[in-house]
Amino acid sequence: MANPLAILPELESDLKRTEQELLQTVSSGVSFMTEVASHLIKAGGKRVRPGFAMASSSVLDPDGKPATMDVIRGGCAVELVHIGSLYHDDVMDDATTRRSVKSVNAEWGNLRAILAGDYLLGRASELAAALGTEVAGLLANTITQLCEGQILELETAYNPDRTVDIYERSISGKTASLLASACRIGALVNELPRPVTDSLTEFGLSYGMAFQIVDDILDIVATDEQLGKPAGNDLLEGIYTLPVLHALGDDRIADELRPLLTRDITSAQRDRARELIRASSGLLTALDVARGWADKAAGTLTDLPDTPAARALRAASDDLIVRASIPLG
Amino acid sequence: MANPLAILPELESDLKRTEQELLQTVSSGVSFMTEVASHLIKAGGKRVRPGFAMASSSVLDPDGKPATMDVIRGGCAVELVHIGSLYHDDVMDDATTRRSVKSVNAEWGNLRAILAGDYLLGRASELAAALGTEVAGLLANTITQLCEGQILELETAYNPDRTVDIYERSISGKTASLLASACRIGALVNELPRPVTDSLTEFGLSYGMAFQIVDDILDIVATDEQLGKPAGNDLLEGIYTLPVLHALGDDRIADELRPLLTRDITSAQRDRARELIRASSGLLTALDVARGWADKAAGTLTDLPDTPAARALRAASDDLIVRASIPLG
Repeated sequence: MANPLAILPELESDLKRTEQELLQTVSSGVSFMTEVASHLIKAGGKRVRPGFAMASSSVLDPDGKPATMDVIRGGCAVELVHIGSLYHDDVMDDATTRRSVKSVNAEWGNLRAILAGDYLLGRASELAAALGTEVAGLLANTITQLCEGQILELETAYNPDRTVDIYERSISGKTASLLASACRIGALVNELPRPVTDSLTEFGLSYGMAFQIVDDILDIVATDEQLGKPAGNDLLEGIYTLPVLHALGDDRIADELRPLLTRDITSAQRDRARELIRASSGLLTALDVARGWADKAAGTLTDLPDTPAARALRAASDDLIVRASIPLG
Repeated sequence: MANPLAILPELESDLKRTEQELLQTVSSGVSFMTEVASHLIKAGGKRVRPGFAMASSSVLDPDGKPATMDVIRGGCAVELVHIGSLYHDDVMDDATTRRSVKSVNAEWGNLRAILAGDYLLGRASELAAALGTEVAGLLANTITQLCEGQILELETAYNPDRTVDIYERSISGKTASLLASACRIGALVNELPRPVTDSLTEFGLSYGMAFQIVDDILDIVATDEQLGKPAGNDLLEGIYTLPVLHALGDDRIADELRPLLTRDITSAQRDRARELIRASSGLLTALDVARGWADKAAGTLTDLPDTPAARALRAASDDLIVRASIPLG
């Protein structure tokens, strides 16, 4: 899938500069560190977070000019936090591949993957510090929120009584906070008016919530081919997401579903659980919630002028809903 | 051992405020995160880095007044980077105890230890961001240097041809950079004149180099009882430190020492290697180098007025040399 902001006029050339800046930022006097720290950057990525930083920064610009270097750097800071967290995620999951290349831990071992992940967080923070204390503080707070969201998920793993509130706090920390910060940093760097900056932050947060819920729905409804990775993995890992939690509230299937949700779940049980959830009211409820967040995201943009960047952000939130609906059809 | 700045008039009460600030800083809306992230803080520590931040901040103060809250916070930022890195070190070493308590990974598993370590880095960066862009940038750069020093050590593990230059770069990153930053942040927060700030940074760096070399010498010469942990551990882990590298340059013992330095080293071979190094010229050479750094540290203080803090810093660098000499006597 392309960057969701594909209609942004300067996106392609801005993303090229982003790639250069990412590589330059992680370059180290210790050449081995450069190699390890650039591994996942070179594996590519949609650069959703830098894209949101760029779009947000130029949301009042009628012409859609190229992003300033500071905006590029702000987007890179958020992306490097994301990438650093992937280094640690892959250690924690014992993952062997990531973005179609060998994971860092598989290639160089856990020790180097942990250190390089920390190093990426440090480089991200250096970039942010150069953009002012507000950006630096925001990025640092984003790191803590990310960790809080992830540890909350771990704490409630394999617990079918996990609440919707805990689920929302977890995805807000692990996914939405990074998108909110990307948007806010883009706005802060270009010194947009405070109300616009706050709206864009709200956009990023709402988009992020919708995005993660859609992702969690796809894990239940999509095929391996559609996802490009094994579907139903969350159920194996004990991550009971919104469609699962709402399915457990559907009396028609809850009694059969609940006993399947254990640490010892087999592939066959996982497949059965997915069928049950798909047939339940939980799936549509989750989709409604995702739509609500996407609508909220779109709503934050209503007071903005009709600029190329505002159109791109709007198109991105519309796309999300389309993405969630296709596999249901 | 007490904090090396024990003669600082307000140290005790400033360190009490430091403990409170450390705990308050890592407090999270996710109560489980608070528990995991405060575990090693509660286990105590000498708080050497906060002490150096305080002493540096008041090096021009004839009265030795209590530290300001910003100085306390600056010291805490460095200490939290140190503690966060310990969380990750213990995962990497599969350690079971730290500071006489169960290590975080042993208590809650590697996943939570990795996340809580990241969280501590994030909280440290938040504190630093509130102290201005220069402090924020410095702290972020310290994180990257720490990781570079550690990965350089990993890269040259079990390599007896590791150079003295690589050794110095490694300990500069993993140990000295944190002490240099602690001193520099103390000076920056109190807006001391630039030449004084630079001298104090140099003090911290030189002190840190001397400190680590002394630590590495003690691993060769001290007993388990003197160290409070198993001596000779570096040899088992393949970390060939300055006394080892210089011993390998002593023709009288090199031929016997070199074949002992492998991944398969036994405890008996480790004991023999320590004997050989102790009997070699390498030990005294390393001690000379440590003395050189400690002298350099003391030299950075010569232009300072005779204040309580300057006296405490001088006493700390003198203590280092005493510490290194005792087990040789």
